[in-house]
Amino acid sequence: MNLVLFADSDLDGAGRVTARGRRAEHIVRVLRASVGETIVVGVENGRMGSGIIESVRPDAVELRVTLDREPPPPLPLTLILALPRPKVLNRVIASATSMGVKEIHLINAWRVEKSYWKSPRLADANLRDQCIAGLEQAKDTVMPSIALHRFFREFIESFQSNSRKLVAHPLATHECPRALRESVTLAIGPEGGFIAEEIASFERGGFEPVTIGARVLRVETAVAALIARLI
Amino acid sequence: MNLVLFADSDLDGAGRVTARGRRAEHIVRVLRASVGETIVVGVENGRMGSGIIESVRPDAVELRVTLDREPPPPLPLTLILALPRPKVLNRVIASATSMGVKEIHLINAWRVEKSYWKSPRLADANLRDQCIAGLEQAKDTVMPSIALHRFFREFIESFQSNSRKLVAHPLATHECPRALRESVTLAIGPEGGFIAEEIASFERGGFEPVTIGARVLRVETAVAALIARLI
Repeated sequence: MNLVLFADSDLDGAGRVTARGRRAEHIVRVLRASVGETIVVGVENGRMGSGIIESVRPDAVELRVTLDREPPPPLPLTLILALPRPKVLNRVIASATSMGVKEIHLINAWRVEKSYWKSPRLADANLRDQCIAGLEQAKDTVMPSIALHRFFREFIESFQSNSRKLVAHPLATHECPRALRESVTLAIGPEGGFIAEEIASFERGGFEPVTIGARVLRVETAVAALIARLI
Repeated sequence: MNLVLFADSDLDGAGRVTARGRRAEHIVRVLRASVGETIVVGVENGRMGSGIIESVRPDAVELRVTLDREPPPPLPLTLILALPRPKVLNRVIASATSMGVKEIHLINAWRVEKSYWKSPRLADANLRDQCIAGLEQAKDTVMPSIALHRFFREFIESFQSNSRKLVAHPLATHECPRALRESVTLAIGPEGGFIAEEIASFERGGFEPVTIGARVLRVETAVAALIARLI
């Protein structure tokens, strides 16, 4: 947690905020911050700045905050991701959020196990927690949107976007482009990849299949590597 | 596991090999492969190819292998990594290996907690298991070397290499280069980064500080993102 994120409603009119629970514990135990010290804070979907600690109790830390700067610019990249294994989902959402992705679509695919869609990790509250973890890691405040799509073909073939559309596919003949200066939509498959019929759907939806090489990467690694290559 | 890795000594003179333990279980339970089917196999530090399944018992699978191709080329990238938290170490080693890194140096740094050096995960056998996991994920056979360095300054200031040397540092003024066509040594700090004195040591050792932006990434994400950007 490199920034402590609050909701706008947590602040009183005088710029004071009380951190409780997870946030208070982090300030006291991890940062070991005491009265008079300053930590990095931000307001969800708003500005960021610094918070001077005015009082510390184990369960409540009072801060006076100054919000004097904008969060880092969002990444002009929309991520479409075949729903990963529940164990991996949290890490991937936090990691993509930390890189600045603001729009994530979790989609079904042939090689996505049906049971993944029943995972409690898909609950709004959990997805939100992972986004907050990513924002607090990266020092950002702007929450991404996450949408779930159970019907692969309908979603992909009718996906509307003015961005350049790419689908990562190990068998593609085109190398993934680098350092795009335009906005981009990037689709990444499940372990084992998209099947041929799905790649055909992507192509009907205007997506170009691209590859970053013969090595098969785990989803977490592929997401970070592909995003880093495109931005 | 997208490739099942054997040791050269596992093969008999006729190209037959018996998979046991973890490998047998994977072939039977995950791949659900049966007699006559073919799976991707490789020999540690050797060639890769296919294995036809000749017999299946729950604890032993017999294969006849044909090793007809070379593994993918190694990445011309040496990774120097401040020793991560034990929980993260396994994932980072497997992930860097899957991307093709063949030389990894784990180093001490001011912000590396001393207790990390006592982790049982630093045992040769565990590090080897993570490398194998990375190779089996990426379909590669060539084991990376991993060295541990408890003395930061001695190691960094005397590090000899003909490669271009970079150290990732959020406060650097130079952007990390892209798509290098030369070999490179990349150093990545602990959570919280290297301290100023350490960056000075890197500079004395011929390393250029570079940044990939204001966002603070977790070690796993930073490793994948920086490698993908450089290659």
